[in-house]
Amino acid sequence: MILDGKIVAKNKMDAIKENIDKIIDKYKFTPELRLIQAGNDEASSIYARAKIKRGKKLGINVTLEKFDTVSKDILIDKIKEYSIRKDINGIMIESPLPENLNFYDIVNYIPFYKDSDGMTPYNEGNLSLRNEMIAPATARAVVDILEYYNIKDRNAVIINRSPVVGRPLAMMLLNRDYTVTVCHSRTENIKKITENSDIIIVAVGKKNFLNESFVNKNSTVIDVGINYDNNTVYGDADYNNLLNNVKAITPVPGGVGIVTATDIFQNFLNGLNYQLNNF
Amino acid sequence: MILDGKIVAKNKMDAIKENIDKIIDKYKFTPELRLIQAGNDEASSIYARAKIKRGKKLGINVTLEKFDTVSKDILIDKIKEYSIRKDINGIMIESPLPENLNFYDIVNYIPFYKDSDGMTPYNEGNLSLRNEMIAPATARAVVDILEYYNIKDRNAVIINRSPVVGRPLAMMLLNRDYTVTVCHSRTENIKKITENSDIIIVAVGKKNFLNESFVNKNSTVIDVGINYDNNTVYGDADYNNLLNNVKAITPVPGGVGIVTATDIFQNFLNGLNYQLNNF
Repeated sequence: MILDGKIVAKNKMDAIKENIDKIIDKYKFTPELRLIQAGNDEASSIYARAKIKRGKKLGINVTLEKFDTVSKDILIDKIKEYSIRKDINGIMIESPLPENLNFYDIVNYIPFYKDSDGMTPYNEGNLSLRNEMIAPATARAVVDILEYYNIKDRNAVIINRSPVVGRPLAMMLLNRDYTVTVCHSRTENIKKITENSDIIIVAVGKKNFLNESFVNKNSTVIDVGINYDNNTVYGDADYNNLLNNVKAITPVPGGVGIVTATDIFQNFLNGLNYQLNNF
Repeated sequence: MILDGKIVAKNKMDAIKENIDKIIDKYKFTPELRLIQAGNDEASSIYARAKIKRGKKLGINVTLEKFDTVSKDILIDKIKEYSIRKDINGIMIESPLPENLNFYDIVNYIPFYKDSDGMTPYNEGNLSLRNEMIAPATARAVVDILEYYNIKDRNAVIINRSPVVGRPLAMMLLNRDYTVTVCHSRTENIKKITENSDIIIVAVGKKNFLNESFVNKNSTVIDVGINYDNNTVYGDADYNNLLNNVKAITPVPGGVGIVTATDIFQNFLNGLNYQLNNF
């Protein structure tokens, strides 16, 4: 079975739009998400434009503030300014940043309720306390797909231990009673673990990494990979080979990625509601 | 082999004392850890007294502020006051709190650098970013024992998913390249997972829960349990039965508990150093 991210994303977009419409109607203002980009990374620019476009569909004002070169202090001052401004309801630092800037040193200054990217330690820690108001969008997207398709097999393995994917996802799966194993580049025999798991979430950044030898007929494969090869995008799983050899799999593109793009706005909406209810 | 917590704790106590002595010598003041207890839970009073005693050995002033009944607002005001005071360098809310008070609603107000208990979401999230300045003391204790005994087998299973033990410990083990599985009460076949693991960390609160059927000859068992039965304390593992059937095991008492008691002061020291370096 194909786990179609487009359907999951469409449903989420509709639900978010409905909520945003109600907020605009009630509070008479257009909420704003401010993107801050430093440097000229091309992929980063593409993602920023996609967010602006998606924001437009949702009735959210997504604005991009771009610096060719910028110091840490100036970025932090910007964040402090936007933290106070009531017309700015979400702040995202586009990554990657130029080498002179450490992502987390800067993100740390974003108030948790404006952290649409779910990158602050406070929001990361809250996942452990089962508070998922704001979560890294990729982790939320994986959970959304499992929930939409009602995949209740209780044994999940994540091949990724980053604070953006593997770790928050582990917390969110534990919150839903899954038993969770986290593997990574230093794990000795990943196949031995995956072949006995119900759900395999792969995020290793290698085209065709996950092949038939990792799975069983009952596996559900959630492919978080985005790999470019000859201007074509591929996941981490060998999709064509696996489609008929597993129970279910997400395609790339059209799987986790499109849900992730939507879930940034789920974070934005949740943070916006927090602001409206508390300030 | 017996993994002796007393030796690990003794070494840590010596190292912490050496650091505290230097700080007192250099800054000419006695650092203070403030314990706040609400209600009259007996176990809570025992733990508080133990901390006062241990603080004395280390040259730290541990003070207990006790309320029979108290409101959330008063507790938060206290925390705000102690957050600013330079002579108070750590704040701990003794648990359990009376039913009218939610632990995390209150703990949330402790600044991360005075959170000697490692209970704030910010410190919990920082573990994912490999910043372990402050960590829940039990999780730190397990890691300390593995490091002291140089246990490098890379496959660990934790039977506990709480934000106090299982979750932060999973993050800290990932930081050290272990492959980590987290099981819990809803896991269907825990034995199948543990019997194939190198390291088993058990924290389920049931005397004799972990017996021979969960382990293999090469297992290392870290027992986090503290169960009282007829005025005697027992762990979660059937120690007498396992001692000769596994590679290594921590006793109870004399295992994780005594290292945990010490690691509260490791957190305190780390937070104190942060305060001295940043304010």
